[in-house]
Amino acid sequence: MPIRVFNTLGRRYEPFEPIQPGLVKMYVCGPTVQDVAHLGHARTYIAFDAIIRFLEYRGYRVFYVRNITDVGHLREETGEDRIIEGAGREKLQPMELVDKYMFAFFKDMEALGIRRPNIQPRASMHILDMIEFIKGLIEKGHAYVVDGNVYFDVSTFPDYGKLSGVKYEELIKHRIEPDPRKRNPADFALWKKAEKGYLLKWNSPWGEGFPGWHIECCVMAIKYLGEQIDIHGGGQDLILPHHENEIAQAEAYTGKKPFARYWLHTGYLTINGEKMSKSLGNFISIRDALKKYEADVLRLFILSAHYRSQIDYNEQSLSQAEENLRRIRDTLNQLYELVDEAEERGEVPGEIGEARKAFIRAMEDDFNTPGALAEIYRLTRSANSYIQSSSKHSKTALKAYYGAILELSQSIGLLQNYKPAKMKYPADAAKVLNILLEIREELRKRRLYELSDSIRDKLSEIGIIIEDTNKGPRVKFRK
Amino acid sequence: MPIRVFNTLGRRYEPFEPIQPGLVKMYVCGPTVQDVAHLGHARTYIAFDAIIRFLEYRGYRVFYVRNITDVGHLREETGEDRIIEGAGREKLQPMELVDKYMFAFFKDMEALGIRRPNIQPRASMHILDMIEFIKGLIEKGHAYVVDGNVYFDVSTFPDYGKLSGVKYEELIKHRIEPDPRKRNPADFALWKKAEKGYLLKWNSPWGEGFPGWHIECCVMAIKYLGEQIDIHGGGQDLILPHHENEIAQAEAYTGKKPFARYWLHTGYLTINGEKMSKSLGNFISIRDALKKYEADVLRLFILSAHYRSQIDYNEQSLSQAEENLRRIRDTLNQLYELVDEAEERGEVPGEIGEARKAFIRAMEDDFNTPGALAEIYRLTRSANSYIQSSSKHSKTALKAYYGAILELSQSIGLLQNYKPAKMKYPADAAKVLNILLEIREELRKRRLYELSDSIRDKLSEIGIIIEDTNKGPRVKFRK
Repeated sequence: MPIRVFNTLGRRYEPFEPIQPGLVKMYVCGPTVQDVAHLGHARTYIAFDAIIRFLEYRGYRVFYVRNITDVGHLREETGEDRIIEGAGREKLQPMELVDKYMFAFFKDMEALGIRRPNIQPRASMHILDMIEFIKGLIEKGHAYVVDGNVYFDVSTFPDYGKLSGVKYEELIKHRIEPDPRKRNPADFALWKKAEKGYLLKWNSPWGEGFPGWHIECCVMAIKYLGEQIDIHGGGQDLILPHHENEIAQAEAYTGKKPFARYWLHTGYLTINGEKMSKSLGNFISIRDALKKYEADVLRLFILSAHYRSQIDYNEQSLSQAEENLRRIRDTLNQLYELVDEAEERGEVPGEIGEARKAFIRAMEDDFNTPGALAEIYRLTRSANSYIQSSSKHSKTALKAYYGAILELSQSIGLLQNYKPAKMKYPADAAKVLNILLEIREELRKRRLYELSDSIRDKLSEIGIIIEDTNKGPRVKFRK
Repeated sequence: MPIRVFNTLGRRYEPFEPIQPGLVKMYVCGPTVQDVAHLGHARTYIAFDAIIRFLEYRGYRVFYVRNITDVGHLREETGEDRIIEGAGREKLQPMELVDKYMFAFFKDMEALGIRRPNIQPRASMHILDMIEFIKGLIEKGHAYVVDGNVYFDVSTFPDYGKLSGVKYEELIKHRIEPDPRKRNPADFALWKKAEKGYLLKWNSPWGEGFPGWHIECCVMAIKYLGEQIDIHGGGQDLILPHHENEIAQAEAYTGKKPFARYWLHTGYLTINGEKMSKSLGNFISIRDALKKYEADVLRLFILSAHYRSQIDYNEQSLSQAEENLRRIRDTLNQLYELVDEAEERGEVPGEIGEARKAFIRAMEDDFNTPGALAEIYRLTRSANSYIQSSSKHSKTALKAYYGAILELSQSIGLLQNYKPAKMKYPADAAKVLNILLEIREELRKRRLYELSDSIRDKLSEIGIIIEDTNKGPRVKFRK
């Protein structure tokens, strides 16, 4: 069965066939690093991480590029560069702010178990590439210069709107501030002239300025993945104008269509039914969410919805994810523990192969993670029935259940760091030690010195020294 | 007392006076990210980390820039770009190799407890800035173009050699391959022409090419710190030609002297008395060293030599560092434990203030970390005497010792994550639990069921369930 994906370009399901068999060239728009990353970022990057892991599980090699926007992303409301705005807010140099939040983002991604992309290019590394690209667009007649600014001429690209389905009349609405220098209100800036004293600017054939946001991703994707790529992804808020503009730039420049074969977009994440925003006071950073829930819970929650669906973050959904995760882990722990005592016989239960097939079928169907998770739950229930049905278990069956549940979970990035609980105690050593010391006191009271001394000796062997003082035992540790 | 530093520029001690009172602008040359970082990197960056932390402890604000070289650093022997060479070796794209080892470097620095600089600029982010800078040098008559290459004309900068003390005749020796295009064998490349198919190249007024390594640090330092900076640091192997060339470029361009007020250089790190090198088979990566020794041990070892001295990595020195660290920690643990039982009286022992003063004096004397560590050891011995001298301790004295030892250690980055051992058990819960279960079995054998049952009940209270089977007790955990 080939994989089929829902392509935003064309709004239909299509069989997934990469340009070069076996290799998937994939680009996902990364964050503008002006502030801490939030749950919306987590949703998008976890969804694509699961897709990438599954593609690799299915035998593809994935070459994955996700950029860092550290210049040129203007706020629509004010026209201000988000990095310069953040730098002003925090009284930092622009690139100091960038480093602060870029490293915070790297940390968040690592904490969420999201694989590091093959390349994470920064927009500021590619100013010259962008200038060359813009020069090419001007030469080909797709862009024009006005007073130190360069605009893309949308009228030269008849395909404009093919991704979003936007109509010309609607387009005008998206331009908040009609710019009298534009030939056409739908045109967009490739290069913007910088005012005197502007903090992030470079010399160019058109004077000092900085690149537009849309040209960045286009240039970085082409530089590292080639003129035609397989998957281009991002949040659905990027469809218009960001991705529409990327297509226009890339296809006008290269003359090759399509720029990206498959456009995949993640749905919105809401908080208790409302849009997340700082002004509503319901903004949740990844860092804060991770204080409350472990990474596997957040991932299970996010994958419990299809990547294109809207998903709501609320206590009930997260508790449900916690509970589902606990059940999977409990089953794994039990399977692991029973292996030692199990018998050397038996065969792999038929349910396992069926569940694996159904899991793969679900993921092959536009990466249907809720369907795939249902198969993991089904397999877990089947394993529990097997555990309860018999007191004599087969090593083969136990290991097959254990291996399959872990394999499928990890193929979408869940339970990456799972270790059987036998090796991972929920109680801390201090509590167990206190019980041991209470027992020792009790033995001493009963004058069972042989036993109480044996406790002291055994503890000493593992580096814990007990000294008896008139205030009771004092604990010391030997290195 | 003002701080005095040994300035490589002039080879003498000088009082440390930053350009802007209270603010230290500091640049240290970062790694070329073509491979894993080794102990030589650890030595340099730990030494400067301790200097920065101490400057902050003394009340300065430090603005610290350390670059990432991801282009233009050629291997002297072969003339090949180290990144392209590494990419060929590992069959990766150049920027894929860069990301691989840049993130590995970030991880190493974090694991060593080295503070993240305010900005970590990448050379590839500044190609345009370098082109502008080179254009300026040509305009001012300090550089000339030959066949797509741009060279710095050393004859126009009479101060050349002032950092290293190198003489013209010696200079010629440092140019392995006399380049017939150079006016003078001592001239060095600012911009190099790229061959067709070369992987890391950019368009420039002189054709396609890439920047020389020396121009990178110069441009990044000036961009983020200004035309004159306070401290410029690096390994002593960088004095000639890298730092000599930086001075020539910067001072020729800005006309301001000095480019950096204080040039600080770290000495070499040898392995068992030999130079570390891959060909000698004694190359030790930071990652591997951290498998053997914890970060505090490596730091204590490195700070046990003056930053300018040569230091030898060998088992004996590292064992010594381990032992010294253990003593400090043991004393801290003991002080911490005794506080609870101590009396609410007493005063701060005089030794503490003296040790703090002597510590600061040592650090103010060109960051004499061995002298500073000696004061920490002296304070530790003094605390131990106090602990042993009396059975009735004063809370004030215990807390003062504890606080001072930790404060001084942390002022140079040691014991950043120290927690009193009472809260941090060296033994794991599993081992303690095993002892408890052995005792329980023993009690059951002796038919002391009341005691053995009390163990089960107490364990159950902390979430550990003991089930007795005919194969012995089985442990389960309740969430």
